[in-house]
Amino acid sequence: MAGKVFFSVTMSLDGFMAPEAVPVEDVFSPEGQNDPRVQHWLAKWSKLQAWLFPQRFFRENLKLGEGGEEGLDNDIARATYERTGASVMGRRMFDAGELAWPEEAPFHTPVFVVTHTQRDPWERPGGTTFHFVNDGISSALDQARAAAGDRDVRIAGGAETIQQYLGAGLIDEFSIALAPVLFGTGIPLFDRVDPARLTLDQTRSDPSPRVTHLTYTVTKP
Amino acid sequence: MAGKVFFSVTMSLDGFMAPEAVPVEDVFSPEGQNDPRVQHWLAKWSKLQAWLFPQRFFRENLKLGEGGEEGLDNDIARATYERTGASVMGRRMFDAGELAWPEEAPFHTPVFVVTHTQRDPWERPGGTTFHFVNDGISSALDQARAAAGDRDVRIAGGAETIQQYLGAGLIDEFSIALAPVLFGTGIPLFDRVDPARLTLDQTRSDPSPRVTHLTYTVTKP
Repeated sequence: MAGKVFFSVTMSLDGFMAPEAVPVEDVFSPEGQNDPRVQHWLAKWSKLQAWLFPQRFFRENLKLGEGGEEGLDNDIARATYERTGASVMGRRMFDAGELAWPEEAPFHTPVFVVTHTQRDPWERPGGTTFHFVNDGISSALDQARAAAGDRDVRIAGGAETIQQYLGAGLIDEFSIALAPVLFGTGIPLFDRVDPARLTLDQTRSDPSPRVTHLTYTVTKP
Repeated sequence: MAGKVFFSVTMSLDGFMAPEAVPVEDVFSPEGQNDPRVQHWLAKWSKLQAWLFPQRFFRENLKLGEGGEEGLDNDIARATYERTGASVMGRRMFDAGELAWPEEAPFHTPVFVVTHTQRDPWERPGGTTFHFVNDGISSALDQARAAAGDRDVRIAGGAETIQQYLGAGLIDEFSIALAPVLFGTGIPLFDRVDPARLTLDQTRSDPSPRVTHLTYTVTKP
């Protein structure tokens, strides 16, 4: 049986999945750490992801050390990882991740990067291989489906890539960790999605002390 | 003991509390019913409020007839009504309501309308009296608090009025019925709120089959 195509993100109560973009090189450079724009970005990102960072699974998977919280938040983070047989991401998310991820990238599966850049597959220790797909989102998804087998395909991000898959009717379901945070400005999750093309059913809604985990299935009207 | 100041609205998953505005006279005129903009407005509004309209309490309170659904959605609609000792609303919401509400307006308490229009109190059958306040939001709230006694004051809407009270630090808590609907465009609930001035705690999160009822308390950072 073929798996599902899903995305899973954290969203602020006012609909943003990330702070306004700053040059990713700045975030990971020593000079950038003193840049007020970078400090502002990191402060907002940390508030948004505050539910995830202390979880045992998150710390394990990024090799941040032993320990961490257990409970619903941890169970959901782990289940999201375990259901994923392959991921798809946009070029900007890959560029940021290439600077941010540890050598052992946290996917441990094939990852298909939608990009105009031609590049040979890039194999990382621990089972993650990045494949660079130059012929569009459908091709990337086909390849990810084949690689995932009976597990699911995660559209990892960023917002623009998620919106392209949503707009093309290629998402079966999605999960949002709704954080009790207002961003005011940032990168909206649902900007540029034509709502006439999507009908949602709320299939799960699980509160943790920190966020509410919402799951929707997508049907065409 | 003084009551709390709260608001309670339905919000689309992408953050809108109403469709883009159309002239309210059009919505309630016979010609307007054939206007595509009005039809579009009504279709979106009905999707957003789909959880509320079939509830027994809603039908009772607007005298739409006997019967209706019971359960969590109904309990929450009724509890929101019962905790409210007085309401505050903006001029546009009042203008729309003046056309939309039945003669026995559905508040059954004092309602304070923030407006530049000078007008004598307007008493309706069933216990609703509209008071027109010309000296700003703080004055309207003070009068509503005094009228509410130990019950709570509801900032009824619309979005701009809610945002003014939020921005002034005058909201103690708020509830959102988060509907599984994407609007794409419309009137955002949290537009023009400075997030640096508000910290939220998620205090309740109760899923019904139709929506998720979220409650947040507001603290200053």
